[in-house]
Amino acid sequence: MKILVINCGSSSLKYQLIDMTNEEVLAKGLAERIGIEGSIVKHKPAGKESVSIERPMDDHKKAIEIVLNALVDENHGAIKSMDEINAVGHRVVHGGEKFSDSVIIDEEVLKAIEECSELAPLHNPPNIMGIQACKELMPSTPMVAVFDTAFHQTMPESSYIYPLPYELYEKYGIRRYGFHGTSHKYVSQRAAAILGKDLEDLKIITCHLGNGASLTAVENGKSIDTSMGFTPLEGLAMGTRSGDIDPAIIIYLMEKEDMSISEINTLLNKKSGVLGISGVSSDFRDIEEAAEEGNNRAKLALDKFTARVKKYVGAYAAIMGGVDAVVFTAGLGENSPETREAICEGLDFMGISIDKDKNKVRGKETVISTTDSKVKALLIPTNEELMIARDTKSLI
Amino acid sequence: MKILVINCGSSSLKYQLIDMTNEEVLAKGLAERIGIEGSIVKHKPAGKESVSIERPMDDHKKAIEIVLNALVDENHGAIKSMDEINAVGHRVVHGGEKFSDSVIIDEEVLKAIEECSELAPLHNPPNIMGIQACKELMPSTPMVAVFDTAFHQTMPESSYIYPLPYELYEKYGIRRYGFHGTSHKYVSQRAAAILGKDLEDLKIITCHLGNGASLTAVENGKSIDTSMGFTPLEGLAMGTRSGDIDPAIIIYLMEKEDMSISEINTLLNKKSGVLGISGVSSDFRDIEEAAEEGNNRAKLALDKFTARVKKYVGAYAAIMGGVDAVVFTAGLGENSPETREAICEGLDFMGISIDKDKNKVRGKETVISTTDSKVKALLIPTNEELMIARDTKSLI
Repeated sequence: MKILVINCGSSSLKYQLIDMTNEEVLAKGLAERIGIEGSIVKHKPAGKESVSIERPMDDHKKAIEIVLNALVDENHGAIKSMDEINAVGHRVVHGGEKFSDSVIIDEEVLKAIEECSELAPLHNPPNIMGIQACKELMPSTPMVAVFDTAFHQTMPESSYIYPLPYELYEKYGIRRYGFHGTSHKYVSQRAAAILGKDLEDLKIITCHLGNGASLTAVENGKSIDTSMGFTPLEGLAMGTRSGDIDPAIIIYLMEKEDMSISEINTLLNKKSGVLGISGVSSDFRDIEEAAEEGNNRAKLALDKFTARVKKYVGAYAAIMGGVDAVVFTAGLGENSPETREAICEGLDFMGISIDKDKNKVRGKETVISTTDSKVKALLIPTNEELMIARDTKSLI
Repeated sequence: MKILVINCGSSSLKYQLIDMTNEEVLAKGLAERIGIEGSIVKHKPAGKESVSIERPMDDHKKAIEIVLNALVDENHGAIKSMDEINAVGHRVVHGGEKFSDSVIIDEEVLKAIEECSELAPLHNPPNIMGIQACKELMPSTPMVAVFDTAFHQTMPESSYIYPLPYELYEKYGIRRYGFHGTSHKYVSQRAAAILGKDLEDLKIITCHLGNGASLTAVENGKSIDTSMGFTPLEGLAMGTRSGDIDPAIIIYLMEKEDMSISEINTLLNKKSGVLGISGVSSDFRDIEEAAEEGNNRAKLALDKFTARVKKYVGAYAAIMGGVDAVVFTAGLGENSPETREAICEGLDFMGISIDKDKNKVRGKETVISTTDSKVKALLIPTNEELMIARDTKSLI
């Protein structure tokens, strides 16, 4: 069985074609600048050279058409015919409270996803464009939607309700949804497998640390709390996002600087986080470099980032009544031994002890805790595409 | 040495006259409805009946005049003459970054406190009115300002800097200040004394749980992090305050409901917290009662409150690399065994174990942890007035 995984952004489209008999990637790629001048598809078939296909793409339908042609191309293709694609798995950002699991897409589901656009006006509409384009081009191929929010739908009310007038939850659905669910789910499952334990018996804290970053408390395989909230703005200090701040700061700033709602939105989402503190960059590699060269604000940005992750680790251990494993994933989590070490430093009191040598590793599944560490620490590269393909396979 | 402690609100004034030879309260009371029809002083001399003095009070000066007269009254007074008052200690809410300790009030200090009004427009102005009234009525009596924020000035940058553009800190002083400092300082000192340990050797988490509520991580006697921030809105779910929320909720609400800045301010400060969730009351006693009667939203409000305190306890243990003592104080912390038990439940993994029998206590200094609990849990009634008097005594 071969499954095509699609992840559409507003002007981009990532894809992977996965052979589910052995979970091998047959081809993958990225379409960029959709609807903008200079559209391009970068296509990489397994075991062959990458190719760049520059061609106008007015919309996602055109982009998918080019991707499908690339996949069956006799030189750089991966399959002989589109009929070999048994199903398409779509990443959808927001499933609201309607979707607590992946689902086969039909008219009703598509309508429900559209209704969730209200909660994710920047993300769901391109996801829907991708679904509709595939529907037109491959009308008889079954499609599955896999939601970023679904894994977190198991949170108890005391985690997802905000201390706000309850009516705002009832009227607008203002609650914690959480994101990166596919990643948190994938790495928690892998952690149980690597440790040879039943996921049902484990308390795991998963740290998805990339430019966007979130932590999840996974108890018995279920998300019971997560640091992102109503939107992906809440929680950790991120590349450009503020994460948690005193809400009164918004009120103060709007008054002081006569800022509009849209200006505040840009400030908190695009100009804050480690970029805001450091003034250097939103890229942790740049900030680490600047800190090494003696830039105090860069150092401060890194300290703030790790302190906040550490606090969430402590908080999630507290609500689970302990923790068996801490998992690091995503760009920074997979590739920065320094960050992982800084986060775990001083957590011996709760049984976390890192082996500094084992921790000198990047992007490879590794147990990085000492052999006698009560709590296991692991590096697990995330694989959201594979998770989407697995969910798709199990549904069709 | 006798010290008068003054705590002015916008239309109220609390006072205590304390004999510092034995730290006994000679008289205390409350002036209410200052500047409003129906002004009244409720005066309680030690060992005598309370008296109510109903008299017009146009301003804080008039209120203090009536208080001073009550203190020297031959029937319900506590001293013979105003000359017996050796000094006045004033509670001042916001000392900004200027004051990291209590200070004798002179013209320069008064000017600096006025400058901090910018950061606490509701609180500092009445504090200043109280200071000025005392200056006029007792011009030769030394006065000391004791700040709610001062104790937290020891926080490291990584605790007080927000992940926002650094320029906002430089330009407006947008940072974490923290509040309830006098209370956190007092109970952490008492905890060390009760445990017979040196404060310098202890990691303490102080939980000031009242209608306003905050937690502080006190390491070696110094505040290194606290849950209130730029304003007292951040942190825990409080009586009517939201505490931490996704900042994007504000943006969403202002757009959806076309709310003004002032309406959002009222929503977050006056209509949220456990009142907002429960819809019942901002008073925890009412909510506990409703929850017992089966009100699900009241139950949810309590669960949210305790879950968030628990998370901060875990977070602060994590940044201190462990914890030696957890202290409960203020209205709820002193008087709700249920809340204390719910907060500590499941924290055995970090060495906290409550003795349910010892915990059945209200308003009395008690070690409530089991004898073999690695981390000590304590109930310590706060006494901000005494702390203010002590600081005043040591400065003059």
